[in-house]
Amino acid sequence: MQVGLVGLGKMGGNMAQRLRQGGHDVIGYDRSPDSDRQADSLKAMVEQLQAPRVVWVMVPAGAPTSETIDQLGELLEPGDLVIDGGNSKYTDDQAHAEKLAKSQIGFVDCGVSGGVWGLTEGYALMCGGDDKNVELAMPLFQTLKPEGDFGFVHAGPVGAGHFTKMVHNGIEYGMMQAYAEGYELLQASPLVENVDETFASWQQGTVVRSWLLDLLVNAVKQDPGLSLVRGYAQDSGEGRWTVEAAIDNAVPLPVITAALYARFASRQEESPAMKVIAALRNQFGGHAVGKAGETGDVPVS
Amino acid sequence: MQVGLVGLGKMGGNMAQRLRQGGHDVIGYDRSPDSDRQADSLKAMVEQLQAPRVVWVMVPAGAPTSETIDQLGELLEPGDLVIDGGNSKYTDDQAHAEKLAKSQIGFVDCGVSGGVWGLTEGYALMCGGDDKNVELAMPLFQTLKPEGDFGFVHAGPVGAGHFTKMVHNGIEYGMMQAYAEGYELLQASPLVENVDETFASWQQGTVVRSWLLDLLVNAVKQDPGLSLVRGYAQDSGEGRWTVEAAIDNAVPLPVITAALYARFASRQEESPAMKVIAALRNQFGGHAVGKAGETGDVPVS
Amino acid sequence: MQVGLVGLGKMGGNMAQRLRQGGHDVIGYDRSPDSDRQADSLKAMVEQLQAPRVVWVMVPAGAPTSETIDQLGELLEPGDLVIDGGNSKYTDDQAHAEKLAKSQIGFVDCGVSGGVWGLTEGYALMCGGDDKNVELAMPLFQTLKPEGDFGFVHAGPVGAGHFTKMVHNGIEYGMMQAYAEGYELLQASPLVENVDETFASWQQGTVVRSWLLDLLVNAVKQDPGLSLVRGYAQDSGEGRWTVEAAIDNAVPLPVITAALYARFASRQEESPAMKVIAALRNQFGGHAVGKAGETGDVPVS
Amino acid sequence: MQVGLVGLGKMGGNMAQRLRQGGHDVIGYDRSPDSDRQADSLKAMVEQLQAPRVVWVMVPAGAPTSETIDQLGELLEPGDLVIDGGNSKYTDDQAHAEKLAKSQIGFVDCGVSGGVWGLTEGYALMCGGDDKNVELAMPLFQTLKPEGDFGFVHAGPVGAGHFTKMVHNGIEYGMMQAYAEGYELLQASPLVENVDETFASWQQGTVVRSWLLDLLVNAVKQDPGLSLVRGYAQDSGEGRWTVEAAIDNAVPLPVITAALYARFASRQEESPAMKVIAALRNQFGGHAVGKAGETGDVPVS
Repeated sequence: MQVGLVGLGKMGGNMAQRLRQGGHDVIGYDRSPDSDRQADSLKAMVEQLQAPRVVWVMVPAGAPTSETIDQLGELLEPGDLVIDGGNSKYTDDQAHAEKLAKSQIGFVDCGVSGGVWGLTEGYALMCGGDDKNVELAMPLFQTLKPEGDFGFVHAGPVGAGHFTKMVHNGIEYGMMQAYAEGYELLQASPLVENVDETFASWQQGTVVRSWLLDLLVNAVKQDPGLSLVRGYAQDSGEGRWTVEAAIDNAVPLPVITAALYARFASRQEESPAMKVIAALRNQFGGHAVGKAGETGDVPVS
Repeated sequence: MQVGLVGLGKMGGNMAQRLRQGGHDVIGYDRSPDSDRQADSLKAMVEQLQAPRVVWVMVPAGAPTSETIDQLGELLEPGDLVIDGGNSKYTDDQAHAEKLAKSQIGFVDCGVSGGVWGLTEGYALMCGGDDKNVELAMPLFQTLKPEGDFGFVHAGPVGAGHFTKMVHNGIEYGMMQAYAEGYELLQASPLVENVDETFASWQQGTVVRSWLLDLLVNAVKQDPGLSLVRGYAQDSGEGRWTVEAAIDNAVPLPVITAALYARFASRQEESPAMKVIAALRNQFGGHAVGKAGETGDVPVS
Repeated sequence: MQVGLVGLGKMGGNMAQRLRQGGHDVIGYDRSPDSDRQADSLKAMVEQLQAPRVVWVMVPAGAPTSETIDQLGELLEPGDLVIDGGNSKYTDDQAHAEKLAKSQIGFVDCGVSGGVWGLTEGYALMCGGDDKNVELAMPLFQTLKPEGDFGFVHAGPVGAGHFTKMVHNGIEYGMMQAYAEGYELLQASPLVENVDETFASWQQGTVVRSWLLDLLVNAVKQDPGLSLVRGYAQDSGEGRWTVEAAIDNAVPLPVITAALYARFASRQEESPAMKVIAALRNQFGGHAVGKAGETGDVPVS
Repeated sequence: MQVGLVGLGKMGGNMAQRLRQGGHDVIGYDRSPDSDRQADSLKAMVEQLQAPRVVWVMVPAGAPTSETIDQLGELLEPGDLVIDGGNSKYTDDQAHAEKLAKSQIGFVDCGVSGGVWGLTEGYALMCGGDDKNVELAMPLFQTLKPEGDFGFVHAGPVGAGHFTKMVHNGIEYGMMQAYAEGYELLQASPLVENVDETFASWQQGTVVRSWLLDLLVNAVKQDPGLSLVRGYAQDSGEGRWTVEAAIDNAVPLPVITAALYARFASRQEESPAMKVIAALRNQFGGHAVGKAGETGDVPVS
């Protein structure tokens, strides 16, 4: 089928390619003239599409996505459909849907997982929206998703797609941190000589085998002992939003939150909180111990 | 090759079967006369083995394992080898090795993962011990492990096998809790209609795909929404030992520890700590708010 | 000085009394005719005040506070001042201030701590706003605060008062949970016979002595072993907001968040997350162990 | 009464002074000749005491304490009493008591809190042992403890003293971390201008007032904004032992454990676990985003 695709970056570009390989007619647009775009403007892109038009938006979350959807609301016609495939916060989806609904334009939010492997292996898709709208875009979903029974879910109404994708990423935070803690403990133990090899061995027969483990094994193959990488991790919005959603729903998420906080802490050169601890220890003298007499000294708190 | 196998329970029995399928001659012994044993006593089992004898111990950790190893120390001869394939605490291994070394009997500790799938898919094995001893048992390891490049590691000296298996289980705790938290949050959200289907869809194309996810999908297929299972989880020793090892090595394990504590809490009918919180809130009156006047009321802490 | 006080519930009523004892002329208003109000309506209250009028709003956070401030915006005149002494979320303050500023009415947000003890011991006050506005209300603050050097801070511009009060409550969550965990561990230990007496003894000479400890000792005096209270704790908004603010500022708050999550968990009859753990353990058979043979059985993960 | 005091370091020296001020006859011994000792050897000290002898041991936990107690076991006589006032692990106490019991020498373990303030304000004491032995030393306890009703508890049999002192310190970890997190969040917020002043104001009227808060206010008075202290905190044994005891008793201690882990992390120049996270993010390309096209780029996990 025909589809307009806004945003031809790393993700959007690969998705365009996979869609074309699946026989779809993709009219791509990107703000950058250096991109491999088929239209010089959103308007020009829309003009190349036949009703009912389907436009897949694949630009950064927040203002870029909202602005693009606003413009599409003016360019598209009743019966057309906008899919937000970016990493929008689920709370934005309802507003986007309502704005488009005023012009009788449909909206589907679609969380997309798969990264650089999506082109060849397919993308996992999590959708939110009305049945009718999801149906309209189904040929695209069928091509983008991996071959096989899985990799696509229509999770609920508008917002459910980005919500489930957000939780997916929250789980990912927890899993990554679990492997990371295990790796650190093995490295710290004087008993274990082959940490990287141990992780590699776990790829078969164990309870912890997973795609993330495979990635980690790739990483240590390229950089044994991870001596070249810095212990510094950014967080994307999804981890934070997952914790916010947990708080809104009074759901305890100790593991996912701990994983998020570990990333926060990794970006601090020094922990301000630990300055307080150190200052307090100074105050009650606990830390100064050990300097005093040869024997007869006991920690003083 | 020939091997004595002590312990013919669920794990030991399956391992005996896989070893025999691999062409090994397994002389099994179990304390229970109802078991499918080939010897009526440890002594009888040892007598059926030709030197250098290899005896694989597959009995519960703690006293049963220590007592079995003690007895083997008296029954075996210099040059023989004992493999502890149970879930012993890594700190026990050194003592077992030393005891056997007095009689010039070798020792290898071997953490085994695989559960009920091990019989057909193979067991992941993590060994600790001298090269010579590991070499001696290698034909057994080759048969027990899964086909392919992975599933076996010689992680270090005595103790390293159980240590790595323990950390493996610690990681498993963290991963399971990550999925569990995500499941709970999806269930709690009014937006998401198809929680089980969402998890199933994640089996392809996502970052969180794993064997544990496959198991969880199996579980919700058998019991949609997990309405039949109780929210009550035991912990095996490994989770606790992992945290103890972390403390010994001053390694922070927030995620693995949180996963362990969640299991502790699940077994409490009521949290004693929360009684303290409730009592404190009573004291400063914070909780009684809401009972008072129509307007004009503010939480009082 | 003269002050209008909106909201004569448990907190507002006590504050009116303390203000009058300090010589101030309090015109109280409450929606409830049964209250001890001096005016039948907000309008009547405002009419009894002389310019520049100061109105202290002490009603529940959220809609009640916003509606009251909206009405005051219409009733008051340029140069008048509104103080929000309730538990508003700090993010609401800026909007309230801007709305009032359109009519040249000043705004100060004032977090109030002290509960039922405030009447006699004084209230701790944390203010946000312009110097000029804080100055105008200073005679009220001086009366409400405890005698002595402390108990009042002008923490910053509008919002800083409720923000610091919120963090105060976040710290309180962490402290309460610290005591609660210690109490639970002492109760669980077979070594300790006198848990309540131990906590009482800590009131002097220790590092952990505090007002909260005094309250806890009161509580166990009334209910030894806390056998009468349920292990069930509500949370007020401040704990949640503190974690949200942490996420906004990428500040790791492991202790305060854990304290909040412990309260969430205490209100669940059963943990949905733990159902996932239990279901997974069923899948790989780990839990069924122990049922099988007499010896020879090892946990199977 | 007469007492032998072994260990005249910072703690022991002050305690000797407070005991003498209370009218007791203290025969002090310390390994160091530079100390203010009244005996040149343990033996000489014991010889100066009249039966039934009471010897208070105040030396570092572990080997120094065990060796001292061993020697006292040989020097003392039936009916004498040894008090271990150091920070011994509670699990050591039973062994010490049994060793001394063979010579019919009594044993009391006594956790001591108070630090440098103990000399003037008194020490909080937590004892474990038989009633008879605790009675014998009661005149010493009465002098060492603060004036007033509190500061002393006989918590249970041998071991209960050090166990309760350990839990006391665990609670202290949690409380300190709660303040530390609040301080960090206030510093991070653009809204709050007077963080130090805010903490000072909390000393009266608030729920979080405590001795630790007073210490923190002292600290920021000496070093505003804590700009001079490093965010690096040691941990004493008690925090680790508290978590170990929690694991032994299946008691969840999320707050106390998080406080301990925060200290572990503060001593790492770089988090090895975070290297794993960063390496994984590299693998699935998530972090490289932002480098690519002008628009059209979405995080790729």
